[in-house]
Amino acid sequence: MEDAGFTATRENGAVPFRWGPGSRLGVIGGLGEMGRLFGRFFGGHGYKIAVADPKNGLSGREVVEESDMVLFAVPLHRTEAIIRELVPCMRPGQLLMDLTSLKTGPVREMLQSPAFVVGLHPMFGGRVSTFSGQTLAACPVRIGREDWASLRALFTQSGIRVKETTPEAHDRMMSIIQVLFHMTTMLKGRVLREIGVDIAETMEYTSPSYRLEINLLGRMFAQSAELYSAITQMNPYTGEILDHLRKGLDDYGQWVAAGDLQSFAGDFDRSAEHLGEFCASAYQESSNILDYTVDLFRGNGGR
Amino acid sequence: MEDAGFTATRENGAVPFRWGPGSRLGVIGGLGEMGRLFGRFFGGHGYKIAVADPKNGLSGREVVEESDMVLFAVPLHRTEAIIRELVPCMRPGQLLMDLTSLKTGPVREMLQSPAFVVGLHPMFGGRVSTFSGQTLAACPVRIGREDWASLRALFTQSGIRVKETTPEAHDRMMSIIQVLFHMTTMLKGRVLREIGVDIAETMEYTSPSYRLEINLLGRMFAQSAELYSAITQMNPYTGEILDHLRKGLDDYGQWVAAGDLQSFAGDFDRSAEHLGEFCASAYQESSNILDYTVDLFRGNGGR
Repeated sequence: MEDAGFTATRENGAVPFRWGPGSRLGVIGGLGEMGRLFGRFFGGHGYKIAVADPKNGLSGREVVEESDMVLFAVPLHRTEAIIRELVPCMRPGQLLMDLTSLKTGPVREMLQSPAFVVGLHPMFGGRVSTFSGQTLAACPVRIGREDWASLRALFTQSGIRVKETTPEAHDRMMSIIQVLFHMTTMLKGRVLREIGVDIAETMEYTSPSYRLEINLLGRMFAQSAELYSAITQMNPYTGEILDHLRKGLDDYGQWVAAGDLQSFAGDFDRSAEHLGEFCASAYQESSNILDYTVDLFRGNGGR
Repeated sequence: MEDAGFTATRENGAVPFRWGPGSRLGVIGGLGEMGRLFGRFFGGHGYKIAVADPKNGLSGREVVEESDMVLFAVPLHRTEAIIRELVPCMRPGQLLMDLTSLKTGPVREMLQSPAFVVGLHPMFGGRVSTFSGQTLAACPVRIGREDWASLRALFTQSGIRVKETTPEAHDRMMSIIQVLFHMTTMLKGRVLREIGVDIAETMEYTSPSYRLEINLLGRMFAQSAELYSAITQMNPYTGEILDHLRKGLDDYGQWVAAGDLQSFAGDFDRSAEHLGEFCASAYQESSNILDYTVDLFRGNGGR
């Protein structure tokens, strides 16, 4: 690696961005799906990429020491420990970023260093076909306003929507999006397994919405057990979500035992009321998508 | 109503179908969404339609007595009682059908009459834009082979896929498709309400798959509380599904408390193994749909 980049760019003041193209970006975990995706992204913008990965020879220490920017793209359940171990090699003026699905823990660890810190969470997987239309949650917790604006622009110019937030607000929101939704999907997969359901047989009764839902379920189980387990289990609010789910099932069980259809419907109505006008727009948008899926299924052999 | 139809058609033997076009079809609950949809369907095929509905003047008794075919399109939680009350007016040679989402109870009640019986369950709502590509589950429990073939052809010629089954196998399958899936969706809606989640705020973090899932959730809550409560609560296997869900949450709770990520991932892996090759095809099919939704969302203002 040459040592152009960061220092030169900064000192000549020619560009406003402290870590502009030409800077050296070290990707820790750079051979994983997300590491490769973002390596290609920054490489395509003229950054010099170095990779540390258990599968190649460079150590995290070497890469951190020789980089102007460091991007952690390692599994969630190992992120904090890996950052912690490398903090002693980090220096002022460096930019640290990570790509993990939770932000409180990893950002806290990066802040132990003297470097600048931006936590990132791509709301998409490493196998997306395009950045355009995707969302990236970002916690610019320690970075100058102009530098952040320049970094942000790198993403938005590729069609990525950047959602700025704090690590705590992010993780709270993820307790809904990831824990509530993914954990109930895991739960459904578990029950399908325990009952020994033949998915092909259920598809014989396909409604478009069931086919869509079972596809989204299958999609989750096609992905990483470690990732999904970590994002559902390691969120600081997971215990609270589990309590709410259990309480709901307890109520349902009582109403079923008592044949109390009214309480069931009343609970449904109160939830619909909370969701408010969203329900009508969701009905419309999902109808559009379901029409598309009906066409798609028909094209697939129209089972 | 004229009294052409059934008797004439049957006695002159001119058409093979005992209840061909021209027959008198009485729709009990004919002003509801499904009743109107199927009334239009049969009317469009040349049947003479009479409607009994709390909102118009004809009684169920009058309609049953003057019809060759009777179609029950009443709310699930009232279907069995309504059929039971009308059994004394039913006669041999009539064809009874119903459209409810569970089949064991309604079919059992129709079989108390001396009439022919076909239980139906449209796997689609009353507001679909087209029959084409939709699925209709059918339990032809008491009907001649040729008559059933003719009735079936009425549906399949409109592009409807007819899935034949027994009432018991149907309800078992619905304990997965309706109870497991809809009940967990109701549960998610309840937790969103209890935590006071602002849906618009979660959409700021939109991943295409979350947006799709929350849309499907909102779609359910845009529909009938009575229907969804009845199909989830009244299924004969609901108690069993609830037990499995509770057991799953108990395990998850223990693993979270113990920080036992390995058990969580192991459970995930076993479910993925049960789902088998379906996961890969689901990943592919859902990717196609998610690409479409990204385009759709972008067109909708690209939030």
